[in-house]
Parts: sequence; structure tokens; C-alpha cells
Amino acid sequence: MTTLSTMDTLISTLTLEPIEVNLFRGLSPPEERTRIFGGQVVAQALIAAYKTVGGHVCHSLQSYFIRPGDPTLPVLYQVERSRDGKSFATRRVLAIQKGEQIFNMACSFQVPEEGYEHQSEMPAPAFSPEQMGEFIEAWMKTAPEQATRWLRDSPIEMRAIDPVDVMKPVAKPPHQMVWLRARADVGDDIAMNQALLAYSSDYSLLGTAMRPHGVSWQSGVQTASLDHILWFHRPTNFSNWHLYVQDSPSASGARGFNRGAIYRSDGTLVASAAQEGLIRRRD
Amino acid sequence: MTTLSTMDTLISTLTLEPIEVNLFRGLSPPEERTRIFGGQVVAQALIAAYKTVGGHVCHSLQSYFIRPGDPTLPVLYQVERSRDGKSFATRRVLAIQKGEQIFNMACSFQVPEEGYEHQSEMPAPAFSPEQMGEFIEAWMKTAPEQATRWLRDSPIEMRAIDPVDVMKPVAKPPHQMVWLRARADVGDDIAMNQALLAYSSDYSLLGTAMRPHGVSWQSGVQTASLDHILWFHRPTNFSNWHLYVQDSPSASGARGFNRGAIYRSDGTLVASAAQEGLIRRRD
Repeated sequence: MTTLSTMDTLISTLTLEPIEVNLFRGLSPPEERTRIFGGQVVAQALIAAYKTVGGHVCHSLQSYFIRPGDPTLPVLYQVERSRDGKSFATRRVLAIQKGEQIFNMACSFQVPEEGYEHQSEMPAPAFSPEQMGEFIEAWMKTAPEQATRWLRDSPIEMRAIDPVDVMKPVAKPPHQMVWLRARADVGDDIAMNQALLAYSSDYSLLGTAMRPHGVSWQSGVQTASLDHILWFHRPTNFSNWHLYVQDSPSASGARGFNRGAIYRSDGTLVASAAQEGLIRRRD
Repeated sequence: MTTLSTMDTLISTLTLEPIEVNLFRGLSPPEERTRIFGGQVVAQALIAAYKTVGGHVCHSLQSYFIRPGDPTLPVLYQVERSRDGKSFATRRVLAIQKGEQIFNMACSFQVPEEGYEHQSEMPAPAFSPEQMGEFIEAWMKTAPEQATRWLRDSPIEMRAIDPVDVMKPVAKPPHQMVWLRARADVGDDIAMNQALLAYSSDYSLLGTAMRPHGVSWQSGVQTASLDHILWFHRPTNFSNWHLYVQDSPSASGARGFNRGAIYRSDGTLVASAAQEGLIRRRD
């Protein structure tokens, strides 16, 4: 059932071409998209920053989506070495197409050290990923090919508990949980596992703020990710199931604010996320 | 009881000197500090960015503290105009001393528009600011002058519910609430009210992650704000009381992660905050 080919394509997409010191080039896979997927830009920018640090591990990134990316053109990633300290290294990254910023990011890296430990408790999901898989298998036997292709072909396996029907949305609470994993194991490579997590974390987050309003990106609402922030708390292997717990504390001014916590299925908190998105009524 | 002079000093500190297009200079007040207060740098950087946009309102900022700021030297704020769109404008700001970044920030502005509305409910605080004020008045009659000076002289009035005794900390839950207001009314000036909120939001947030470990910055722990992120959901007048609800979902790798929600006392959510801080045992 696994489609290693799309995972190979994603890993290849995250493997940037070095152009000069601090300068890298990334491509988009051949897909039916009019804009580059935001999670791909975040993941490529993170990999670009990683190529300029040695021995440090990323503990956070913060970014803005500025202009739509064109998937038919390469993206140039320009890394600025803001600081190289003994414990911490900081970078700023510009993603450029046709001479203009499509995205900017800052991120911070740390030499791993020990310290105080605590974490929030993982809420109990209504269904395990295995139970969700059975529902999806049953549904795919009756659903049209077009609707099931994405579920089969995505490099990230996603099983949303209580998802919104994007074609016929009804109002639901402003929180949701989604099981996530990459379709292939990249081993202990911290940078690549973080890049896969970053890529995946941009899929469902923005939708959280639309849930209480019974709308979706397919029901007359213009949507766009405005920013994307991640904190990496603990290393993880993203080929295992992770629970993405999301809530939306606010919507106002045509913007929805969303937060996320990503847990391993054993309850270990591995990352936190935040994203504000445009959710604008098309009148 | 109000000390308008320290508020005047803060407003003067937030009034930057224009040097050239996109270039501004800020000073620190004469205080007994060895490093510039982080909230001051965030607020000055926000004001610098505001000076390069017209008619747009800031809806979010994201930043990193990179090097300690020297309060005896001015800070140069260099604004990059990342994009000027019809609805949104994006800026990046560098704070520079002695030719080096001490801080960098990106922020986004929007022409105000209407849209979907929801918000999280304000949790009920155990005490109103007025009740807290009575406790503080009583305590100040017996406490040493040194301990009460800061409470009287700060431009931001702060009343922490269940505070940690920084000299003799004991373990408490990883969440806290603090009442906050500016000691003077700057009217409807959105930029200045946001700057005052940004300034205030850096005081207590990092301490949240230390609470469950029964430690403080006065008890053998090295602390430093690493980042600071704010989302401005709704305009507010910061001379009124606001409840700053803070929690810490994680500590790991000598870093504590903290989140905040700032409500008007009538329950309106006006801003969200996030901050990771270094919390390193001094051995």
C-alpha cells in the first residue's frame, strides 16, 4: 500500500542544489498545483539553513509566506549567518523567485544540552491510527478514484479524526486531531525528520480556524497561510505515527490563528506549531 | 500613586529618531540594567517598522534575541520592505549595535477588514486587579524599600496572581496569570498601544517554564529570552487592565517553551504570545 515513489520524490525535493556558499536552489515536484505548497518551502528553507551550521540542532523556526510560489520555477534560498555562538547559531533565510521574496524565515540552532524536563499531556484521541485506517480502507472501496488518489499518493500519511467535509462543511468545534507519519523511514537524520515534520505541519493547521464557521477552502472562502512557526522540543523519527493536536484560539479581521502540538503515539511531545492564515469570505 | 515620569520615559524611549529612509535610532532609559530589556527592543523594532507603512495595522511579529544589548549605547533599527501589497505589507527589522545584530524581527501589517469572529474564553482569575492591589498595598507597608521600588516605578503596573518568590522559589504548576496595564493612556494610537503590549509581554512569560521546577533567575538558573512572537487579534487601549494568561507546554534541552493569551478584563482576547527561553542550570 505504501507509495515509496512519492516519498522518494519528496526526499529528492528536500535535497537542495548548492549554488555558492549560503546559496541553494530547490525544485518543486511535478504536481497539479498552481502554487508551491507552503510546507515544502518551510522544509526546503530549513534544509538550506542546516547546510550552513555544523553540529547544531534546530530548536525553532519562524516564517512568513509573502508571495505565491510558482511550482514551475526553481526557488533560490539565500542564507544569512546572523550569529555563530558557542551554544546557539541563528540564521535568516530568504526564498526568492524572479528576484522577489516569496517567503522569509529565521531559525535558531543549539548544541544539544541537558536541562529541566516537563511537557503537556497528550489528550486521548478517539481512534488509533490503525482504527482510522480501517475506516479509510472501507471508505476508499466506495469513493471515487479522484477523491482517494491524494490519500494514496501523498508522501505523508494523514488520518484526521472528525474531519470536515471540505465540499459540504458543517460547523464543528475549533480544535481537531490528525494522525501523521512519513511513508518512509529516513533513520536518525535529525534535519530530515524535522523537515518532514515541518512539511506535514502545514497541511491541516489553517483549517482549524474555519471549523466553527462551517466553511472550507472549497466553500467560498479564500485561504492562505500567512506565517508558520515551529518549536522542535525533542528529536523524533517521523516514519512513526504522530498525533497533531490543533486548536484555534481566535479568528478576527479575516485571519484565523491556530496552534498545534505534535506528540509521538507514546505521548512524547516533539514539537509545537503556530500559524495565522487568511480566511476571507469570497463575496 | 502613579509615576507618570517613568511612563513618559518609556514613551520617549519608544519615540525613535529617524536617521534615513528605513533607518531609525533608539535609546535606552537610564536604568540599573546590564542588558537592554528584551521587551524594549521588540517595542522599538515594531515602532520602526510602523514608520515605514501607511494605514496598515500590525497583526503579528516574530523575533529572535541574538546578542545582549548594551543599554549605554543607541540601537540602530534597519527596516527592509519585504513586500507592499494591497492588503498586506511585510517588513524585516534588524537591531544593530557595534555593527552586529543584537535582535532580528519580521512582522506583517494588514489594511483592517471584517471577517469571521471567534475567540477562546478567558479563564476566571482568582482575584481582580483591585483585590490584588489591596494585597500589594498591605505588603508594601512591611516590605523593604528595595523590594517595593520596582513595583512603584515600573511604567507597566503588574499584579501577578500566585507569583513565585524569586529569592525562595517553590514548585508551582506550569501556568500563571498576571494583571497588566500601562500607567498612562496613550489614547487610540494603535501602534503605541501595541508597542506597550509588546513591551509588557516580555516580563513574566519566560518564568512560566521555571515554575514546575521550583527555580528562578535568582536561584542558580541562567535565563535569557531566545525568541518572542506576538499576534495582535484586536485593537485595545493598554491603559486598562489586561489579564495575561500564560502556560508552558514544554521544557527540554535547557529551553522552556511558553505561550500567552492577553485578554481585556471584559474577556475580549486582544493578543497571543509565544516565547522560548534559555533556562540553564548554573553548576
